[in-house]
Amino acid sequence: MAARERIADAVVRTPLLEAPITGRKVWLKAEVLQRTGSFKLRGASNFVASLDPAVRERGVVAYSSGNHAQGVAAAAARFGVAATIVMPADAPPIKLRNTERLGAAVVSYERAAGNREAIAADIAAESGATIVPPYDHPWTIAGQGSVGLEIAEDLEALGETSASVVVPASGGGLAAGIALAVEDRPGIEVLAAEPHAFDDHRRSLQAGERIAVDPTEPSICDALLQREPGEITFAINRNRLSGVVTASDDEVLAAMRFAFEEAKLVVEPGGAVGLAALLAGAVPGDGPVVVVLSGGNVDPALLRRALD
Amino acid sequence: MAARERIADAVVRTPLLEAPITGRKVWLKAEVLQRTGSFKLRGASNFVASLDPAVRERGVVAYSSGNHAQGVAAAAARFGVAATIVMPADAPPIKLRNTERLGAAVVSYERAAGNREAIAADIAAESGATIVPPYDHPWTIAGQGSVGLEIAEDLEALGETSASVVVPASGGGLAAGIALAVEDRPGIEVLAAEPHAFDDHRRSLQAGERIAVDPTEPSICDALLQREPGEITFAINRNRLSGVVTASDDEVLAAMRFAFEEAKLVVEPGGAVGLAALLAGAVPGDGPVVVVLSGGNVDPALLRRALD
Repeated sequence: MAARERIADAVVRTPLLEAPITGRKVWLKAEVLQRTGSFKLRGASNFVASLDPAVRERGVVAYSSGNHAQGVAAAAARFGVAATIVMPADAPPIKLRNTERLGAAVVSYERAAGNREAIAADIAAESGATIVPPYDHPWTIAGQGSVGLEIAEDLEALGETSASVVVPASGGGLAAGIALAVEDRPGIEVLAAEPHAFDDHRRSLQAGERIAVDPTEPSICDALLQREPGEITFAINRNRLSGVVTASDDEVLAAMRFAFEEAKLVVEPGGAVGLAALLAGAVPGDGPVVVVLSGGNVDPALLRRALD
Repeated sequence: MAARERIADAVVRTPLLEAPITGRKVWLKAEVLQRTGSFKLRGASNFVASLDPAVRERGVVAYSSGNHAQGVAAAAARFGVAATIVMPADAPPIKLRNTERLGAAVVSYERAAGNREAIAADIAAESGATIVPPYDHPWTIAGQGSVGLEIAEDLEALGETSASVVVPASGGGLAAGIALAVEDRPGIEVLAAEPHAFDDHRRSLQAGERIAVDPTEPSICDALLQREPGEITFAINRNRLSGVVTASDDEVLAAMRFAFEEAKLVVEPGGAVGLAALLAGAVPGDGPVVVVLSGGNVDPALLRRALD
C-alpha cells in the first residue's frame, strides 16, 4: 500500500504482543507504543505527506480531543510547517501538554458551546492552512490502514490464518483502514468496539445507514465521543465490519487495570474499549483475537482510578 | 547460541523500542513484555530445559524475591514438574500472587531472620528437587544472554554499530549473559546499573574483587537487594563491563513515571534503575544507548507513588 511506504519513516512498526489470557489465543496490537502514543500519527502523517508541497507550506489545522492533535502536530513538525489545533478545554491535560510540546498552537474551546469544525474552518480560511480530517478522508483512512497490514503480516508469521480483529471506533477511520487492509484475507474479520452509550456504529450497522446517538450517559473514553460514524468511513465499514462490541466504563477501567498488571502496558480508556469487551466476554466465538490498543495517553489521575 | 534455541518456545522475543528522548538516541529493551513480566524466565527456562529429564522429574526449588520465582514456576509448569519457591514475606504481593498462580508452592520466610539458601537446600535434600540458581550458574547466565543476542540483532537491523547497553544488576547474571552475547561486537559496551546503596558491582569492579556492601539506606528496588556480585557472574563481568551507573530512589520513581507517561510501559523499580541513571545524566558519552527494562512486576500502590 502506497500510504505505508509514504509514512514508513514517520511511524514505528508496533509489536503484536501475546496477551496473558488463558482459554483463547489473544494478541495485543500495541499502538500505545506508536510515536505520540496513538495510531492517529499514521493517518495524520499520510495526509500531511500527501499534500501538494505548496499547499502544505501554508500550514495545517485540526480539531481533536487529543490523539489526532498530537498526530497532526508531529506530522507538521516533520515537514517544518505550522500546525494549529482546536482542542476542547476539557481534553486530558496530558494530551494538551504533548500537543504544545510538539510545537503546535492550541486553540481551546468549550465542548458544550463551541463548534470545533467551524472554528477550524475559520482558521483555515484566514491562514490558507489545510484542515487535516480526523477520520473522514481517504488519505487519513489509508494511513490508519497500515495497522491492518502489520497485523496481517504478523498473523501470517505466527501461522494464523483466521482471527477477529477488534478495533476501537469513534469516527471509524481506524476500523475502515484496517478493514480495507485485510480485505484480501478471508480468514480475518474486523469488529468495531465502542462505549455502551456511544454505540453509533452498532446502531448504524443495524439500520444500514448512519445513525447519530443521543448518549444517555457520559463515557470515560474521551477519544471515542463521536456521535455518528463518518460518511466515507461508514461507506467502507458498513459492508466490511463483522459486528460491533461495546463496553461500560467499569469494564474499560478493568481492562486498563488488566493491561497494566498483566501486559505491562499503559492504555487510555478509548484505547482499551476493545480489550474491555473481550474480557467481558462480548467478542463472539472462541477463535484467535487481535485487540487493537489504539492509544495510551491517559492522565495519572485516571489511571489511579483504574488501579483502585 | 544453544541456549537461545533451547528456550525459543518458552519465551517471547521482546521488542527494542525507540525511547521518546531528545538529544540522544535511546532504545528500550522491553523485557517487561516478557512472559511472567521479567527476563528471569529466560535463565530459568534454559536451566530447567538443560536438566537431565530424570533429575528434572523430581522437581525444582528456587529462592527469589519474585521475578526468578515466577520464571522458575513458569519453566517448571512447562515441563509439568513441581516447583517450590522460597520467597521473603515482604515480597511484592503481585509477585507472590503470580508465582502461586503459575502453580508453584510458595514457602515464606522473614528476610531479616531466615536464610533462604538454607531453606531451599533443606527442601532440595528432602525432595530430591534441584535448586535453580537465580544467577550464579552457566545455564542461567546463558539464558539471560539471549537478551543480548536480540539487542545485537536489532541494533544491526537499525544500522547502529555502536551502543552502550545499560543493564540492571543484582547478582549480575543478566549483565554477564549480555556481556558474553555481545563480546564479538566491539562497538557494543555493557554497563551495569544499581541502586545507590547497593553498588556492589561498582565497588567490586573498582577493587578488582568481589565486595559485599553494607547498605546505609534501603532501596525501593526489591529485585536488586543482592549485596554482593555472584562468583561466576563477577568472573565474567569484571573484564567485560565498561562501567557501573547508579540511581537514587527518587530517580527510580522519576524513571517509572517517565516510562509510564512517555513510553506507555509499566516498569518495576529494579527494572527502571538503568533508565533512571540515564535520565539523571549518569550514562557517560553521547552515543546511542540501549536501556534494558528488565521487569515490570510492580504493585499498583508503588506505581501510584511514582505518579504522585
